[in-house]
Amino acid sequence: MIQPRVLKGFRDFLPETEIQRRGIVKILEEQFRLFGFVPIDTPILEYTEVLLGKGGGETDKQVYRFEDHGGRDVAMRFDLTVPFARFMAAHVNELYLPFKRYHMAKVFRGENTQRGRYREFMQCDFDIVGTDTASADFEILTMMHDSFHALGVSGVTIRLSHRGIFNRFLAHRGIAKDSAEILRTVDKLSKIGSDAVLELLEELSGKENARAILDFIGAEGDFSAVLEKMEDLAGGEDEDTRRLKDLKAAMARCGIQESFVLDPSITRGLDYYTGVVFETFLDELPQIGSVCSGGRYNNLASLYTKQELPGVGASIGLDRLMAALEEIGSSGRKEAPVEAMVLCMDEEGTGDFHALARRLRAAGIRAEVYPDPRKLGAQFSFAEKKGALAAVLLGEEERKAGTVTVKDLAARKNHGGLSPEEAIKLVRELTKKERN
Amino acid sequence: MIQPRVLKGFRDFLPETEIQRRGIVKILEEQFRLFGFVPIDTPILEYTEVLLGKGGGETDKQVYRFEDHGGRDVAMRFDLTVPFARFMAAHVNELYLPFKRYHMAKVFRGENTQRGRYREFMQCDFDIVGTDTASADFEILTMMHDSFHALGVSGVTIRLSHRGIFNRFLAHRGIAKDSAEILRTVDKLSKIGSDAVLELLEELSGKENARAILDFIGAEGDFSAVLEKMEDLAGGEDEDTRRLKDLKAAMARCGIQESFVLDPSITRGLDYYTGVVFETFLDELPQIGSVCSGGRYNNLASLYTKQELPGVGASIGLDRLMAALEEIGSSGRKEAPVEAMVLCMDEEGTGDFHALARRLRAAGIRAEVYPDPRKLGAQFSFAEKKGALAAVLLGEEERKAGTVTVKDLAARKNHGGLSPEEAIKLVRELTKKERN
Repeated sequence: MIQPRVLKGFRDFLPETEIQRRGIVKILEEQFRLFGFVPIDTPILEYTEVLLGKGGGETDKQVYRFEDHGGRDVAMRFDLTVPFARFMAAHVNELYLPFKRYHMAKVFRGENTQRGRYREFMQCDFDIVGTDTASADFEILTMMHDSFHALGVSGVTIRLSHRGIFNRFLAHRGIAKDSAEILRTVDKLSKIGSDAVLELLEELSGKENARAILDFIGAEGDFSAVLEKMEDLAGGEDEDTRRLKDLKAAMARCGIQESFVLDPSITRGLDYYTGVVFETFLDELPQIGSVCSGGRYNNLASLYTKQELPGVGASIGLDRLMAALEEIGSSGRKEAPVEAMVLCMDEEGTGDFHALARRLRAAGIRAEVYPDPRKLGAQFSFAEKKGALAAVLLGEEERKAGTVTVKDLAARKNHGGLSPEEAIKLVRELTKKERN
Repeated sequence: MIQPRVLKGFRDFLPETEIQRRGIVKILEEQFRLFGFVPIDTPILEYTEVLLGKGGGETDKQVYRFEDHGGRDVAMRFDLTVPFARFMAAHVNELYLPFKRYHMAKVFRGENTQRGRYREFMQCDFDIVGTDTASADFEILTMMHDSFHALGVSGVTIRLSHRGIFNRFLAHRGIAKDSAEILRTVDKLSKIGSDAVLELLEELSGKENARAILDFIGAEGDFSAVLEKMEDLAGGEDEDTRRLKDLKAAMARCGIQESFVLDPSITRGLDYYTGVVFETFLDELPQIGSVCSGGRYNNLASLYTKQELPGVGASIGLDRLMAALEEIGSSGRKEAPVEAMVLCMDEEGTGDFHALARRLRAAGIRAEVYPDPRKLGAQFSFAEKKGALAAVLLGEEERKAGTVTVKDLAARKNHGGLSPEEAIKLVRELTKKERN
């Protein structure tokens, strides 16, 4: 006998959780499609060279990498960004630019599982590639806003900043050469606190610069006040600050400015970003951190093509989002596996039970036939366990008389002597009541 | 520069194909849910021991197998049946029996790609576990029938037989001990022809038995006539032939008997099956072979648990089905990425364009804002390339006057001076027309 275990960091999705996951995917997908985004997919397995590029990063050690039957060095994808860059380089001539895609799929990282992280998890990425405008930045931001609303989240705050202004500020102070290290340090703010960050920055750039950096990222207040301060510290107005002003105007015009906060401490650790950067927090659950992050980059696929592909995009960790929605009770209506259970009164009735179930389904009702001629008590309790709202009885006498009995399982009340049409109507009413 | 190539046998899904694939998945999922089936998911990576069991089969050589960072012998799943067996053994106490699940997910086989096969492909499995009744068999068959109808396939023929009757027939002739080898040989009928099969069978079981086997599997005619012949050759009526009679009665009662053919040449090669077995053929494209196959087994998870789990289920190869639907033109309405394109007249209007796009989306219309202030001609042709039916123009003058111009892209006709409400109404009419 083999033990039916799964690998550490991997897990099964039982129906209740999988229905919930698919429900979230469906809502997001409907929103994305409303914005004119289209889905793509890429292989889970790719050439290691393609996925790791020049390599050397932290990710490399976590990658599931092996030699395939043909002696090729292959790896399982660890994010959806790298495959998208490869995809754009390979297919840019078959597509239209600007290209707006989303991709929801599993990725794999052999991470330390102690922090509650999984080694197989589902990522959801969306990007607009081939344009660098306030309009595209705003489309990503407004789609994030609308998607969380569609998920039933009551309040969401998108904190944004602009990497270009930060870089200009560093250049203005003559410390642009250390920008990568400074970014990594600043990114630790929420984890290690401002005192520790200050200390690290002092070592790196001297006392005065460290203070100035903390001053820059610590700017607080309304959008305009913070923007003014950033502008001052960076050496005046420029394209980058104008971009933020345009975004603010569009937010106001669409009446969604309440959900956005200009926060210069948002820098996103990665070197990759060049323009706006943003993180998303659930108002009811800010402590779990950002549930959707991203930003603007000026060159998506430089590893694979000479064609410059500027873009803006964001990523949602679906597993974390699911857990968060569950916690704040916004994970949507729990969908019962079945609405109407046609009971098995005897084996002779099999065809009749199924014929009635077909009619229920044709009326849009989730209906199944209990397959075994068990005691009715067992069948009723099975129906309730599966969340059915109505049990449909079609005994020998009823089959002769052409009538149907419907039991309202919530009210524990029988409705007998119904015509099939009446029975379907009643079941529809019982299930509709529940749906609202 | 790294070449943006994918591995042999793997491929990217571009938007058009991915939209089609997701459309098929959605239709199947809606059908399955109507029948009270629920989704599950399992990890792509599992212990090799769990996936291969005692091993030794043809599959073993095709499996992507390697050692992970923790020195574990791991493999990527090559089908959804083995993970489901492991899943049931692990979770049977958290579930209810009979349990009805579906699973649509990617599987991986390092197969020879010369036959047009892919190494990463999408499988769709559905099973009822924990019961052995005609009702459960029929539910799987009727769900297959209804699912193909929902996909818009005009005609489908499900050819079925019963492994138990075949085994009884072999026992009746005293050649049951060779049944595994006989099954494998008979399964080659459509590939190598009856002469070659006869020759192989003669070597195996002698001339007379070979003739009898071909006689059994070659029985033709209507359901009752074939069943009578099978019954005769197997030594009379028994539970197995009664099961087929019950299925026939249920098909007739539901008015779907036209889609079913009793065909004793359907045996399914695998040892695994013990009851009904079936294959599904598209009437317009029979030459591509079965698009949905399965059968009844008496013990799903014997490798992992002592609990007996009889079941019945089937499997659809989604990639092959997609190709087939494409060929017979039943792949559903091609969904355009976007319905309405709000043009970019100038950068100052960004907020207004997005505000109008939001209103269009609120009316259920797929709407996007062209992000760059390009020439209008380029924007129109982009809108048409993406399949938009309406372009929405909001120039400076119009913004001042509070009016909107809608261009019907199919009729190449402008409708100017509209209020936003009128514009939305017109766009909705244009897109509704297309949807019907």
